Amino acid sequence: MAATVTVENLNPKVLKCEYAVRGEIVIHAQHLQQQLQTQPGSLPFDEILYCNIGNPQSLGQQPVTFFREVLALCDHPFLLEKEETKALFSADGISRAQQILATIPGRATGAYSHSQGIKGLRDAIAAGIASRDGFPANADDIFVTDGASPGVHMMMQLLIRNENDGILCPIPQYPLYSASIALHGGTLVPYYLDEKTGWGLEISDLKKQLEDARSKGIDVRALVVINPGNPTGQVLAEDNQCDIVRFCKNEGLVLLADEVYQENIYVDDKKFNSFKKIARSIGYGEDDLPLVSFQSVSKGYYGECGKRGGYMEITGFSAPVREQIYKIASVNLCSNITGQILASLVMNPPKVGDESYAAYKAERDGILQSLARRAKALEDAFNNLEGISCNKAEGAMYLFPQIHLPQKAIEAAKAAKKAPDAFYALRLLESTGIVVVPGSGFGQVPGTWHIRCTILPQEDKIPAVITRFKAFHEAFMAEYRH
Amino acid sequence: MAATVTVENLNPKVLKCEYAVRGEIVIHAQHLQQQLQTQPGSLPFDEILYCNIGNPQSLGQQPVTFFREVLALCDHPFLLEKEETKALFSADGISRAQQILATIPGRATGAYSHSQGIKGLRDAIAAGIASRDGFPANADDIFVTDGASPGVHMMMQLLIRNENDGILCPIPQYPLYSASIALHGGTLVPYYLDEKTGWGLEISDLKKQLEDARSKGIDVRALVVINPGNPTGQVLAEDNQCDIVRFCKNEGLVLLADEVYQENIYVDDKKFNSFKKIARSIGYGEDDLPLVSFQSVSKGYYGECGKRGGYMEITGFSAPVREQIYKIASVNLCSNITGQILASLVMNPPKVGDESYAAYKAERDGILQSLARRAKALEDAFNNLEGISCNKAEGAMYLFPQIHLPQKAIEAAKAAKKAPDAFYALRLLESTGIVVVPGSGFGQVPGTWHIRCTILPQEDKIPAVITRFKAFHEAFMAEYRH
Repeated sequence: MAATVTVENLNPKVLKCEYAVRGEIVIHAQHLQQQLQTQPGSLPFDEILYCNIGNPQSLGQQPVTFFREVLALCDHPFLLEKEETKALFSADGISRAQQILATIPGRATGAYSHSQGIKGLRDAIAAGIASRDGFPANADDIFVTDGASPGVHMMMQLLIRNENDGILCPIPQYPLYSASIALHGGTLVPYYLDEKTGWGLEISDLKKQLEDARSKGIDVRALVVINPGNPTGQVLAEDNQCDIVRFCKNEGLVLLADEVYQENIYVDDKKFNSFKKIARSIGYGEDDLPLVSFQSVSKGYYGECGKRGGYMEITGFSAPVREQIYKIASVNLCSNITGQILASLVMNPPKVGDESYAAYKAERDGILQSLARRAKALEDAFNNLEGISCNKAEGAMYLFPQIHLPQKAIEAAKAAKKAPDAFYALRLLESTGIVVVPGSGFGQVPGTWHIRCTILPQEDKIPAVITRFKAFHEAFMAEYRH
Repeated sequence: MAATVTVENLNPKVLKCEYAVRGEIVIHAQHLQQQLQTQPGSLPFDEILYCNIGNPQSLGQQPVTFFREVLALCDHPFLLEKEETKALFSADGISRAQQILATIPGRATGAYSHSQGIKGLRDAIAAGIASRDGFPANADDIFVTDGASPGVHMMMQLLIRNENDGILCPIPQYPLYSASIALHGGTLVPYYLDEKTGWGLEISDLKKQLEDARSKGIDVRALVVINPGNPTGQVLAEDNQCDIVRFCKNEGLVLLADEVYQENIYVDDKKFNSFKKIARSIGYGEDDLPLVSFQSVSKGYYGECGKRGGYMEITGFSAPVREQIYKIASVNLCSNITGQILASLVMNPPKVGDESYAAYKAERDGILQSLARRAKALEDAFNNLEGISCNKAEGAMYLFPQIHLPQKAIEAAKAAKKAPDAFYALRLLESTGIVVVPGSGFGQVPGTWHIRCTILPQEDKIPAVITRFKAFHEAFMAEYRH
């Protein structure tokens, strides 16, 4: 290899960045998967089960038919002129595609769009937000993005000047935030979610961490809240959200609200409230609070991760600041049009009376009810095992059980130069083919150990997952108990 | 507005970044377009003609049918099970979609893929490169990206540590490079293309600029070459390319080869050679040269800008450095699958003997031959005007004529606080509705003034564009001649 570029002379911010969701354990799993293909029977399991990432369709979840009909018709509008098409597509799928194409200049789904996304699609997204919240939303506030991640990067790039700029992030957190803060050279200011109260978010802890950071000269610029929580699965209560909004206003913080799991709620006593709805409900307007809400087509019941669609809704920023956000968006020209169309569809799905409504509702409810059952089954299974305690997954796609590892296991991990939870996850993978992410990739209270496990294996596989996990865990505990 | 975030406390790298292709003149054009809608007849023209950006389908170019067939079938694989589908799609479109779905784990086009892109699609891309170049290519070297831009950002993020790291860029250049270098906090080291020799790239000038930068303490890390040129349209000669490759090896530079216009060549005496082919032809292997080639589905005869597909092929980097590139890619999970599929299709289009071949070839050749005629017509028109000289567009999608502005026009621009070429472009827009980008957005020899104009208006509109342009230019020159 040419020696011009070495790890030693790369951007140190890149070296510092970590992203455990696709880290060491996943790379090891990919190697084992290759081994299973080339040498079947050489491992104690037949398949790798990826519970490391919220990627529902990779585990067999089917896409929502209506959405895919519209995408196919928009990709190949020639079909709309053909009689045979009526036999293959629903009437409202056809009319929706016509309607979407009519909002695209020249019906050109192959053209770069406005850098914020096609205006007509942003109108549909804004209407969906307004109908969800009961407060107005404006297409000019929407930036359609290739999934939620580029939106998060854009905001970090905008706000972080140097290592003295801090971003308050929950611990545990989805490591996109720590990775993005590292890449942009800022400082992650942690606040801890309280595992004992079901991953509660205490304003007093927020306040303490903020003041502590300020006393060290950190200019804390924003607060990240993930609701429903990732990796923790809790759904915030309304009065807690009110307190968070007031805290941001009083402290002059931008509220970065990761709301990508807004459709994923599994308990009757909780519902999703957007932070914008909460802010407007308590009388806060644009002048009170800069607020960014991130949404994605990758999550919800749709789970269309591969389409890379999403948006951010930006309110409370001055016109000159918005121009800067627009400029960053324009350097990458626009997000992909398929993802843009899908973002408009998930915010404006079939309605009562539409031909597709019954089928759409059956698909949606089937997926969400099954996810709720899977979450409960896995939670119960974890809680039935020695040395594991697991909070409820009220929402999102994950469980984050605490593993009370025996001292001997911690010592064995140390000898193997691994974090104890990474040691556990690696052993789990090698024994069962189940891939989970060690808690150390998300952050956790020092001395506690967790894993993040998705609730996404298909329902008929859940009993086998539980059996395999139980057998592994009991053997592991037996090995290291004394 | 909440005063928490102001332009004064944003990341100064964001403030410094400029991107003229979607800058002031385009924003003004969008306002005029709204005015035309709300007050028809209120302007001296009926439509805005966007010649500012290489966005063919926005101006009426039709997508290649075969590609769209395959995308629609992959979006909605249900169609593949239906008899009616055979009446609507070509046989090889259907079999190609089957083949692509078979390479996607679980046929799940809605799942996140490997962070470099789906392996089977990377295999197809690598096979296409190998067949183009006559040298082997490896799927492990391919990173599929959302268009070429994210790949460029990724490399800049990797290589730039601080303002002492420099990247050699052509002047004039496509402003993605200056924008990305500014966003990542590095230094753009310019080298000038020679307008007199048809935008020739002189190694002696490269050498001089490199040494000059080094003498100022700049660590020059990479050389950007855009071939065919943007905004300049020249196609490099083979021996010139050999010299560039040798220069990079001798000077220890990464060669960043923007090869997105590889299919856009309009003259018989030039052909496209990839830099990898050139390097391998003169006996250079991985050890000699770190080389990145960028390709996009947005350009060529396909012009699928809205699909945001592309790839970079990375050779000559050590395994630990490649791991870092993989890590950055993994933080954004993967590029969109529709774009991934399309990137595999443009590198592996229908072949002689396939049912679609004749129709595909007619569409491809029709577009490329028409682009060649449009390039020639516009070039001739520019050269027939007083005070304009224009090099040939040998390739790409642009002309970059020099406008020899009268002194009085330069003074009027100064009084209006505009760069003289921006003043000219603004007057052109306001008189004709034609949108071009001032040369100052790309860089130019100080004291010279240019505009970049695409060759993309549909062929039947070219005479009217020329007539409108000529009338404006003659009136402008008459106004400012003395």
